[in-house]
Amino acid sequence: MLTFVGLGLYDERSVTVAGRDALRAADRVFAETYTSRLVGADLSDVADALGIEIERRSRAGVERDPEPILDAAAESDVVFCTPGDPLIATTHTDLRLRAADRGIDTRVVHGVTAESAVASATGLQNYRFGRAVTLPFPYAHGGDGVPDSVPGRIVANRERGLHTLVFLDIKAAGASPVGPDGDQFMTADRAADLLATHWDPDALGVAVARVGGPEPTLAADRLATLADGAFGPPLHALVVPGELHAVERDALAAFADAPDSVLGD
Amino acid sequence: MLTFVGLGLYDERSVTVAGRDALRAADRVFAETYTSRLVGADLSDVADALGIEIERRSRAGVERDPEPILDAAAESDVVFCTPGDPLIATTHTDLRLRAADRGIDTRVVHGVTAESAVASATGLQNYRFGRAVTLPFPYAHGGDGVPDSVPGRIVANRERGLHTLVFLDIKAAGASPVGPDGDQFMTADRAADLLATHWDPDALGVAVARVGGPEPTLAADRLATLADGAFGPPLHALVVPGELHAVERDALAAFADAPDSVLGD
Repeated sequence: MLTFVGLGLYDERSVTVAGRDALRAADRVFAETYTSRLVGADLSDVADALGIEIERRSRAGVERDPEPILDAAAESDVVFCTPGDPLIATTHTDLRLRAADRGIDTRVVHGVTAESAVASATGLQNYRFGRAVTLPFPYAHGGDGVPDSVPGRIVANRERGLHTLVFLDIKAAGASPVGPDGDQFMTADRAADLLATHWDPDALGVAVARVGGPEPTLAADRLATLADGAFGPPLHALVVPGELHAVERDALAAFADAPDSVLGD
Repeated sequence: MLTFVGLGLYDERSVTVAGRDALRAADRVFAETYTSRLVGADLSDVADALGIEIERRSRAGVERDPEPILDAAAESDVVFCTPGDPLIATTHTDLRLRAADRGIDTRVVHGVTAESAVASATGLQNYRFGRAVTLPFPYAHGGDGVPDSVPGRIVANRERGLHTLVFLDIKAAGASPVGPDGDQFMTADRAADLLATHWDPDALGVAVARVGGPEPTLAADRLATLADGAFGPPLHALVVPGELHAVERDALAAFADAPDSVLGD
């Protein structure tokens, strides 16, 4: 049996009780943290809190050489866990398909995702989000500034009145220029600066930092103003709202300190 | 302090460890279940599992007479909990705004949502979902069949290649004609029948039952075929996919038994 467990958004207490029980009951636990990060805890904190061992696997160790994980799952109870939800972006659906091909039963214990938590924390209605987009580091897409597809998708959503969740690039240690903590996370101020410079400095944005943690920071303002902000440790995301309903405006004013002047009528 | 806690999707083990800890630490715990349901447990099961008392509030008791909850939160640690995520659809953002108006600190412990779990369970990429929609019971929208806005939104998403998550109507006991369990849940087969009859019988649909529970059921087929299916106990949802990428097609074949004939090339 191969059970996929989502660890949720922040630390060792962000997993569901069912997920924690699955982790504890497993014969072996594998984890990857190259697609996202728990920013309030190391994997070793999770392992210690649960009294288990966790075997970390690199991207190559999951995608190019999954056989050791599958061999273990063929003969014992194995958990494969990731931050957030383990299958949300289809990244690990390939592993699940390979297990199915080998006749290994799979199940999923879902985790809290940034996508739903950002809608919840900002007070922006999840029904009114269009397609999400990821803003890459400029060097990562081989160009300057932002790929046209990013403002393109924001504009397409706004034309229909919809909000856009902008996921911000993460480069795992070793994969790119390295930050102080070994990883590199795009900040919401950097993202706002890129979009203000290459798209629209006057558009409303909502910086969202450490959603799912005990002390999230939210700030709503013009992109050019957010570009000068500082929102603390990662992970960050940015929302570019479309039309705002009354409750959404009130929520951005109350919980993200949006100035009246930028909220419109 | 007023802490909003999401109970997640299925039973007393669907809450996060942080959410469970907040529930246990609270002086009083209020809950509502009129916007959604835990289908694998009653609130009393949750209370028993956690060793706490939970005070249930009706819609009127939250929206029209929130003062008792706010009075308690002004002078002690109060948790307000709901299935899924407590603020995902802005339903309870009003309560949070009222608390903020009174100077009561609020925080949020997010829960797993159907929106992200459906994307994860089906293997359909969350990035490729457009705007979601809710399909009401025919009697509930005062018309016959389906409101034009439902196929309208599905078509608008499909024109952009995007998937549509169709939430299915829930009527809490007392609010409408009553089912055997006191509540009424639209099933995925009923939803598929409505869309097959009033929109397109040949369109691909994915019935999703009890996502987040230990034994979810997924079935992908033409809407007219799904209309004749039976997917077991609630909650159900329906996805109408847009363009399918290769991994998405493979996932629907492997995990939702999609016939090759309906998946296209």
